[in-house]
Amino acid sequence: MVTTMQILHQIQKDFEAYLKNHLFERPPSELYNPINYILELGGKRLRPAVLLLTCHLFRGNYKHAFPAALGIEVFHNFTLVHDDIMDNAPLRRGAKTVHEKYGINAGILSGDVMMVHAFNLMLELEDQKQLPQLLKIFTRLSIEVCEGQQMDMNFETREEVNIEEYLHMIELKTSVLVAGAMQIGALLGGADDASAKAVYEFGRNLGISFQLQDDLLDTYGDPAKFGKKVGGDIVQNKKTYLYLKALELANADQKSSLQELYQPNHWSETEKINKVIAIFDELGIRAHTEQIKESYKMAAFTVLEDIDLPEERKELLAGFAHYLMNREV
Amino acid sequence: MVTTMQILHQIQKDFEAYLKNHLFERPPSELYNPINYILELGGKRLRPAVLLLTCHLFRGNYKHAFPAALGIEVFHNFTLVHDDIMDNAPLRRGAKTVHEKYGINAGILSGDVMMVHAFNLMLELEDQKQLPQLLKIFTRLSIEVCEGQQMDMNFETREEVNIEEYLHMIELKTSVLVAGAMQIGALLGGADDASAKAVYEFGRNLGISFQLQDDLLDTYGDPAKFGKKVGGDIVQNKKTYLYLKALELANADQKSSLQELYQPNHWSETEKINKVIAIFDELGIRAHTEQIKESYKMAAFTVLEDIDLPEERKELLAGFAHYLMNREV
Repeated sequence: MVTTMQILHQIQKDFEAYLKNHLFERPPSELYNPINYILELGGKRLRPAVLLLTCHLFRGNYKHAFPAALGIEVFHNFTLVHDDIMDNAPLRRGAKTVHEKYGINAGILSGDVMMVHAFNLMLELEDQKQLPQLLKIFTRLSIEVCEGQQMDMNFETREEVNIEEYLHMIELKTSVLVAGAMQIGALLGGADDASAKAVYEFGRNLGISFQLQDDLLDTYGDPAKFGKKVGGDIVQNKKTYLYLKALELANADQKSSLQELYQPNHWSETEKINKVIAIFDELGIRAHTEQIKESYKMAAFTVLEDIDLPEERKELLAGFAHYLMNREV
Repeated sequence: MVTTMQILHQIQKDFEAYLKNHLFERPPSELYNPINYILELGGKRLRPAVLLLTCHLFRGNYKHAFPAALGIEVFHNFTLVHDDIMDNAPLRRGAKTVHEKYGINAGILSGDVMMVHAFNLMLELEDQKQLPQLLKIFTRLSIEVCEGQQMDMNFETREEVNIEEYLHMIELKTSVLVAGAMQIGALLGGADDASAKAVYEFGRNLGISFQLQDDLLDTYGDPAKFGKKVGGDIVQNKKTYLYLKALELANADQKSSLQELYQPNHWSETEKINKVIAIFDELGIRAHTEQIKESYKMAAFTVLEDIDLPEERKELLAGFAHYLMNREV
């Protein structure tokens, strides 16, 4: 465990330096300033870090994978910029969102060119023979991320969403980018196709588990550790796993109470959050969510068995999974 | 000339059939219906047609280039969808714009995934060895198109724009995509790098000439033939070549009149158009614009000399240029 953290720490430090050296210094500044702004807001750099880590675990020189790692990070930030416009979000990582600071048109266009630069960065990779395969992975996951975002928007207005659909949505919206980053990292590190696919499956299950953890934290997290206001999903009537599972398990009274709470009503935010959590608690939703979250995590570890890597390197991947999931609810 | 038209006609027919067979039939429909809608609105299919024509002229089988041609068309339509949002435009090709019909969020997200699909289509090309080179051309021109759109938006609010900047903007926003389509077509047809670059230069000059023609048509076109209302650029205070050249040549009185006309004022649209055209006419702006338009066209034909193609095939490219520019002012 200590070792994963040490490697990750070094990778993140090196990647941060690379990113700082590769901000966009070309004109027009109205297009590129918003991009540098969002990139410099920080964030966990989770996707590039796991790409580089995976490359390293397969004994590749992770410094050769920096362009791909930056491409993944630029792509991820592009999705944040456009999602924030679509969600009308004023804040991101505690600072103004791009469209709040620079205007909606700047947000749209800067996001667009970020996506192109993301592809362009992939083209900087040295091994030209590998490129078609890597780019196919990258475009496939990019398409899936957009499809996941569309499903998420659909769910906002749809009356009925089932749990299976919800899990498919978070798989597309959140999980495939983490998983794809790992697959690309593995291939760049020299993994064979089968191992790289297994790494993808590991990341896919881990990513879903991670998002379920996020759903849990939003409702049951310790505000001091979680870093944002607890109950945000409830206030926004988000159809999370918690809500959908509650609807599934609720009796007629609980169901109509829940549905009423998730419509415009006279309760204050705090009242609403407390009432919803009371119903969740009656139904044991926290434990149910913990359970499915664990099952995806276990699925990830099962896949890990199939990956052609020495045990001590698998331990490092497992260490990453623990690091990722080790945010206390 | 007849031959170019015959070939183009066949190419356009074949491409249209290919496009109809490659509409996006995957879920979620909320994401893909807007894409099929804009693709089926038609348009001239200028960029795919010239890509395929150029491939054919270098003796390539243009049917192998269909994925790239569709990629270029999908990319072009993505820029239209997002530009229409940014310009707040209600109509496109006589029908509702995507965001008018489906909402702004659908316009943003469908546009995003179109761009990814455009890259994805390029990856379908058969010759994997050529891919990195083709993709580099494609990402470079995609970046430039975004930069050109940003410059265009900047010019709307900037007081001073010089003619050189304007020409650079239309080069990026309009011309590089036509030129890049030709370069990709040439490479797919088997052209060597030098010839493909020369073809790009041909297209670049032709594209600028084409945009200057568009500026002319907007003010001096025959409404019956032009297909849209004449004077639109003037009503929208667009800093076109005509306006910028007029400012350059105007005396103090004419300059202050023009600047007044291009600010909020009490004149009706028709009065404003007539007053502006009167000043343009005093300054011979139509002839000046014709002249620079011709000079870019001539530059294109000069480049044509350097291209390694038999004379009769160059004639076909020249025929395309005539076809493109042969819209009567």
